[in-house]
Parts: sequence; C-alpha cells; structure tokens
Amino acid sequence: VSAAAYAFDADTRVEAVADHRFAAVITDRWNVLGGRPNGGYVLGVCLQALTRVMPLPDPLAVSAFFLRPTEPGPAEVGTAIVRSGRRISTGEARLYQDGKETLRVTAAFSDLRAAPGRTVVLAEKPALPPPQQAIDLMGDRVIPELTIAQRVEYRVAARPGWARGEPSGRPRQELWMRFRDGREPDLLSLASLVDAAAPPVLELGETGSATVELTVYLRAHPAPGWLACRVATRFVSGGYHEEVFEIWDSTGALVAQSRQLALLP
Amino acid sequence: VSAAAYAFDADTRVEAVADHRFAAVITDRWNVLGGRPNGGYVLGVCLQALTRVMPLPDPLAVSAFFLRPTEPGPAEVGTAIVRSGRRISTGEARLYQDGKETLRVTAAFSDLRAAPGRTVVLAEKPALPPPQQAIDLMGDRVIPELTIAQRVEYRVAARPGWARGEPSGRPRQELWMRFRDGREPDLLSLASLVDAAAPPVLELGETGSATVELTVYLRAHPAPGWLACRVATRFVSGGYHEEVFEIWDSTGALVAQSRQLALLP
Repeated sequence: VSAAAYAFDADTRVEAVADHRFAAVITDRWNVLGGRPNGGYVLGVCLQALTRVMPLPDPLAVSAFFLRPTEPGPAEVGTAIVRSGRRISTGEARLYQDGKETLRVTAAFSDLRAAPGRTVVLAEKPALPPPQQAIDLMGDRVIPELTIAQRVEYRVAARPGWARGEPSGRPRQELWMRFRDGREPDLLSLASLVDAAAPPVLELGETGSATVELTVYLRAHPAPGWLACRVATRFVSGGYHEEVFEIWDSTGALVAQSRQLALLP
Repeated sequence: VSAAAYAFDADTRVEAVADHRFAAVITDRWNVLGGRPNGGYVLGVCLQALTRVMPLPDPLAVSAFFLRPTEPGPAEVGTAIVRSGRRISTGEARLYQDGKETLRVTAAFSDLRAAPGRTVVLAEKPALPPPQQAIDLMGDRVIPELTIAQRVEYRVAARPGWARGEPSGRPRQELWMRFRDGREPDLLSLASLVDAAAPPVLELGETGSATVELTVYLRAHPAPGWLACRVATRFVSGGYHEEVFEIWDSTGALVAQSRQLALLP
C-alpha cells in the first residue's frame, strides 16, 4: 500500500508551486459537525508543507492560530524558516484560501530519535479496557456531515452521557483512536489527532466549540497500533474554554500532549 | 505613583520608532540563574509593543517561541496585525537584538470584560496557607545574579526539597506570588509571571531549564492582591519536559494558565 492510498496522506498532500510555497486541496472527508473541516486536519496540511522545508525531521512544539474558517477546496501554504539551529529549528506556515489567511502555524522541529536524556512519567496512562472489549463510539450510527468519523475510529469504555442525550457535567473522556484505513500513527498525524475527538464540553450541554489556538507537543515517535487518549476541560469562562489532550501509544508511552483555547458558540 | 515607577512597567516600556516598530531596553533586573533575562519578562516587552497596535485591549492566547538567548541591552520589536476581527484579533511580534530574532510571539487579543457566558470551574484553587502565614521562599538569602527575586516575592507553605538540597522527586509546587514594589497584577503581567517561578524539575535534581515554547491563556482580569499559583511537570523525555502553570487571583478566580515545553541543560 503506497502512502498516498491512506486518506490522511492523500488529503494532506501538498505540491510545491514556488520557493517555499505549496498548493493543497482541503477535502470534505474530515468534516466535523457543522460541515467544516476539522482544525487538526487543516493543521496537518500546514505541517506537511513545513516538513518539506525544515532542516530537521520531527515536529516538536506546534502552535496554530485559527484565524478564519477553512473550507473544503483549494488552498495555498506559504512557509518560512524562522531560525535554523543545530538541535531545534523553527518555522512558520500560513494557509491561505481566496487570498485570505485562515491558519497561522509556528513550529519548532527537532530530531526526537537523537534526543538524549532520561524519561520520568508522573501520570497514569488512560485506564481503558482493551480496544477489543471497548465500545465503538459511533456504533451503527452514520452522521453524514461528520465525515471525520468515517476516517477515525473511536472506542470508549462506556457510552458518554452526551451521546445518550444526558450530559454528565463531567467534561472529560478517555478513548481509543486509530485511523480506520489502517494507517499507523506518526508524529505528523498525532498533531492532527489531538483535535479529532468530540469536545468534552458536550458533557456540559454545549453543542460545539471553535478552536482559537491549539498547541501540540510531540514527545516521542509512536509505536504502531491503537492510541489511548485522555481529553479534559477544567475551566469555562467568558465563553471560552481550554481543552487538554494526551495521546499514549500501544506500548504505554506518552507520545503527544496538546492544549487548546476554544470559543463556545 | 505613576506606572513607570513600577519596575515591571519601566522595564517593559517600548518606544515607537517607526510604523509598527518599537525600541526597548532589556534590563538585567529580571535575570534568572545563569544571568540571563527571564523569558516571561522578555515576552512582556513584546506584549507591551503588541498592545500598542492591536485593536482590542486584552491578550487572550499568547504563544512564544524562544529562538535564541535574549541578553540585557537594546532590542527592537516589530509587530504586525495578522487578522483583525470583531471579537478576536491576532497579531505577531518579533524581538530582535543585533539584527537577530530572539523571540517570536503570536497572540490573539479580545475584550475579556465584554466576554459573555457562564463560568464552570472543575479544579480546586491552590491549598495554601494565607500569605501572612506562608514562608518567604528566598528568606534572608540574596543570590546576586537572581535579580528577578528582587522584583517578585514568592511565599510557600513549606520550603521545597530542592531549596534544602534534597530534591523530593515530586516536580510540583504551590506558591504565592506578587511584585515586591506593590504593582498590582494585570493581564499583561500575568503573561510574564507564569514563567517567573523556579522550574519544578529542580525537584528531580535538574539544575535548570530553557523554554522552547510557552503558551499562555488569559482567562479573566485579576483582582488586586496576592496571586495563588500552581506549577507542575508530569513528563520528562528526550531531554525535554512540559510545565503547566496556573494563576488564581485573590478572589479565588482562575486568571491565567500556561504551558511550556523546555529543554534540560
């Protein structure tokens, strides 16, 4: 199977059109409720472009500001190297549609396989049943506009309150995730997947959430297999909420952690 | 007392030198161990410049990439409005010394006093004794190169392990903070203060930490008085660690939350 046969790779593909400039097509295959492309997916397109110009292989710290809605259709990504260092290099990507910037990304790149140093973990991995015993969150339901659920599979220990029409008041969730088409996770897709699950503010009776800023730290190359995830919101105020997301790989290593500030509708 | 009489305001002051460009002087009055200016303080200089050009008053989400060390001495800050919106406007600031960019800041601004919506808090504020009964972390010690400790006062329930030469292995701390000269907190200074305390990795026997990326979310205008803070690191790997910082004001409201990825020496 060639990489481009996987939906994530095909749909984040960029083509060089000029020095540091790339053409992309935002597809409608990663839409969330409301019919708009998932922000993490659009971020993935920018990171694909950045990996083409950065002198180091791995995204390490990524910050994305969502300036305007990005729509399915053609887009252009302009990139720039901000600083090229020995251990860390920093770059910038700007995604444009119809001449308007919709997403501004700044990212530090490194070589995580060459990173020295000890590992200290002071948190427990998600306490999920094995994926084979967990419940498919979507079940038999097909929500046509929620096309991201056709690309990503979600499994949970028990159906969340919001999915039963009974928001629990506890905006947190542990879940398994993987690509439905068998594509294994890598650093680039982790940076998208941190934004791929339902926002836990659904448990507060909210109906959705629009990301203002998303920061992702990539901590280690993930092993193949299911990803164990934990997502939580602790503070809602003034119409904004933060959301923290962790991804642990199939060997039990923490591989990505993100935080976003988002706006309630 | 005029604002410029307070150290934070005097030392983050910027002067317009051209359209969207400002001159600043990085002082040596906010140095950390190693004799370098604190990253949060340098970020404060960039935010002072941004507040001069943004059409909305309050920093809401701030991301800073530390590209090179910033040294005491003259600096220039270039700013740009990335997107001007009704509810949120986003800007960029770049700090230069000797023609080299040392700090890249992207920030979404809003008007937090006009922000509608409910408040939901699913976390406890720090469990500290009243400031009057807490211990001055610095005590009678003066560490000449640690000039930030002459600007910011830290009080704790008990002296941390690292300060007694016995790192506890638990990289977390609750503490009170305030400016020593009586300057009250505001959103701008909160964005600096999230980086003003000792890094909790000292409790793992580490000797310091250099920020790669720092994100701050400003959640509400702080009331005057002491700030109750909580800082923790949960994951160390490959020579990097994350650090999460919360600031609660004297009325018990969460006012700022930050996260940074930093490099161990």
